[in-house]
Amino acid sequence: MPPLATLSLSSVASHFPSSSSSSSSSASGRARASAASLAFGFGAKPAIPIRPFGRPGIVSRDPPARRAVSIEKETPETERPDTFLREADGGGGGNGSAAASSPPGSSVRARFERMIREAQDRVCEAIEAADGGGKFVEDVWSRPGGGGGISRVLQDGAVWEKAGVNVSVVYGVMPPEAYRAAKGAASEQKPGPVPFFAAGISSVLHPKNPFAPTLHFNYRYFETDAPKDAPGAPRQWWFGGGTDFTPAYIFEEDVKHFHSVQKNACDKFDPSFYPRFKKWCDDYFYIKHRGERRGLGGIFFDDLNDYDQEMLLAFATECANSVIPAYIPIIEKRKDTPFTEKHKAWQQLRRGRYVEFNLVYDRGTTFGLKTGGRIESILVSLPLTARWEYDHKPEEGSEEWKLLDACINPKEWLQ
Amino acid sequence: MPPLATLSLSSVASHFPSSSSSSSSSASGRARASAASLAFGFGAKPAIPIRPFGRPGIVSRDPPARRAVSIEKETPETERPDTFLREADGGGGGNGSAAASSPPGSSVRARFERMIREAQDRVCEAIEAADGGGKFVEDVWSRPGGGGGISRVLQDGAVWEKAGVNVSVVYGVMPPEAYRAAKGAASEQKPGPVPFFAAGISSVLHPKNPFAPTLHFNYRYFETDAPKDAPGAPRQWWFGGGTDFTPAYIFEEDVKHFHSVQKNACDKFDPSFYPRFKKWCDDYFYIKHRGERRGLGGIFFDDLNDYDQEMLLAFATECANSVIPAYIPIIEKRKDTPFTEKHKAWQQLRRGRYVEFNLVYDRGTTFGLKTGGRIESILVSLPLTARWEYDHKPEEGSEEWKLLDACINPKEWLQ
Repeated sequence: MPPLATLSLSSVASHFPSSSSSSSSSASGRARASAASLAFGFGAKPAIPIRPFGRPGIVSRDPPARRAVSIEKETPETERPDTFLREADGGGGGNGSAAASSPPGSSVRARFERMIREAQDRVCEAIEAADGGGKFVEDVWSRPGGGGGISRVLQDGAVWEKAGVNVSVVYGVMPPEAYRAAKGAASEQKPGPVPFFAAGISSVLHPKNPFAPTLHFNYRYFETDAPKDAPGAPRQWWFGGGTDFTPAYIFEEDVKHFHSVQKNACDKFDPSFYPRFKKWCDDYFYIKHRGERRGLGGIFFDDLNDYDQEMLLAFATECANSVIPAYIPIIEKRKDTPFTEKHKAWQQLRRGRYVEFNLVYDRGTTFGLKTGGRIESILVSLPLTARWEYDHKPEEGSEEWKLLDACINPKEWLQ
Repeated sequence: MPPLATLSLSSVASHFPSSSSSSSSSASGRARASAASLAFGFGAKPAIPIRPFGRPGIVSRDPPARRAVSIEKETPETERPDTFLREADGGGGGNGSAAASSPPGSSVRARFERMIREAQDRVCEAIEAADGGGKFVEDVWSRPGGGGGISRVLQDGAVWEKAGVNVSVVYGVMPPEAYRAAKGAASEQKPGPVPFFAAGISSVLHPKNPFAPTLHFNYRYFETDAPKDAPGAPRQWWFGGGTDFTPAYIFEEDVKHFHSVQKNACDKFDPSFYPRFKKWCDDYFYIKHRGERRGLGGIFFDDLNDYDQEMLLAFATECANSVIPAYIPIIEKRKDTPFTEKHKAWQQLRRGRYVEFNLVYDRGTTFGLKTGGRIESILVSLPLTARWEYDHKPEEGSEEWKLLDACINPKEWLQ
């Protein structure tokens, strides 16, 4: 396959902090969301989508509006670099400006990047091993000003119909309002644009068998520099992410297993984490117009910076390391379960809900679509196939009805 | 089938005027769009979705945010009323307040409602006849303060996998800013909320055969009263709508036939209409993140009020009457064309684009989802099935490539 210009904007977009769990309309939330949609507009040249071949040329008269807010054009790479960090940040073995007094590669930026790269490798290995047939195709890219990413997609395997695992590192500039909102202080000063760093891993895994659940996980770290004209002002940082799963049918032992792995990861750090992040997950993956969650939840958190930074880095690492033990045993158990056309049709209807959530509500996806990133990387989260039947209502008490009930009324699986 | 609580919000939402063709960010456009999303929030009680049976009860702790902006709850009806107009508007044979000096039923409101009701009947008859198997299922509803609608859906027929034809009549109240924007005058007075009337027909028809095109049409009429505390201020009205088609493969004779019927309808009224509304259509049905239109266009117009009102009513009528001659002959020609799995997979990928446009960009759909209308009526526009393959690129020069090229670079089919 020839090299393609690629950009994993879905993981990029997810780097940006959301508002607090239950209030997406808070003042801080609005300011930050606005920052997220504008951050790439500063200092970045308009990106003309590269369609290398096999696709008709773009000669439209008016440049699409999306190019007004866009990101620096990515360059395809033939090999994975050791790091996507800028040299000054610890890339190339130098001391990071983020941690000038630390040994090379010991900054949180550098350690987070290593963590997500290792997690990508391990998850892809585990998926290929469990699939027993499909192989990931990889696209590597970098950006002139620093940063880059690795997208891996396995399509039409033996077990998974579509599995994407992306990592990315982004250097950008955000409007000062966002920095002030993040800082949580009503500052009178008007600082200039604020440079930021973001890194993350993002993955969606859609199996074929209707009894095998879809999994999504995403872990990200975000850091600002001080505003350019206020060098003494404090640096901001936060962590975000989560792991959630979306079966079409409930096997209570599977749900309990999945949630207990999440809870164990949380409990190693703070007993309040699991109940708080479990609820946050139920609130976030909410398809408002349906009154349903897209699945059976897991954990989700964002804007997390009110704990020790080292502790949160270790927590994100623990969460990423929990993906395989939480998910693969369920897949091994369900991947060959016999099923009927009716089971498949129900899975397809739930896949339709997944599409509705991702295209209408998911912040990473909607932000990515607006900023003109690499669409195929963003939309790799969509299932291979989906279905919408008019006014479909599962029979009361049926297995399909039970799943729907759990999506409408989230349950405490571990009580 | 027991009566259901139904609301055709997709046609409702489309009543609201959009901004001008190429500039969705104009001040007027913004104000009106904002009016559209808020109009139903005035004087309407929060609508709790009715899930009559077969669906688990909703006991979520927090009312979904969408209920903050919502519309009056609809009541299912067992029979179609002669009119959904309020009595004072010409319903029940009285003189309309909209045209107090006119004979009963002669107001533009009343005549537009009759037109869309008749168009619905004729289109549904033609679809059933061409399908030769499937039958429309009908849901009728009304609202306590006036207005209502009729939703008809044919699913899994012989020719169409999903066909929806909805009409609706809405009475609502819009914020004064929208009225001032519509009036196009910089008024210093601060009038109160402005009552409005809207009526429309909306339809999406998805055939099974990959060589038979999907069709969408929507025609709507919108009218405000004078602001409540400024009875002498002028009444506003406008027309909107269009007919566009979305094949997965190009048969040039089909495209020329479809566009020539649209052009003939336009040319009866103004030679500038077809070129202007053809371009407007190409601009509106634009999937920004793909740089593609969803299909091969047709005509689209909105906010149309700078012509004689009678002329525009006649024009909208002519357009609605052109749906059958524009579409059915193409269906008759293509509905039984043999096809392979490859053709079907390409149709499914294009259906994926249809889903992307409708969920991400279509104003009727996105507004409808936010205001908490009847979801099944809104999302009847989605195809039964759709597909997303990672990084699919049709072979250069192939039939699939030609379709994509025409979606990226809109053509003048009649030159």
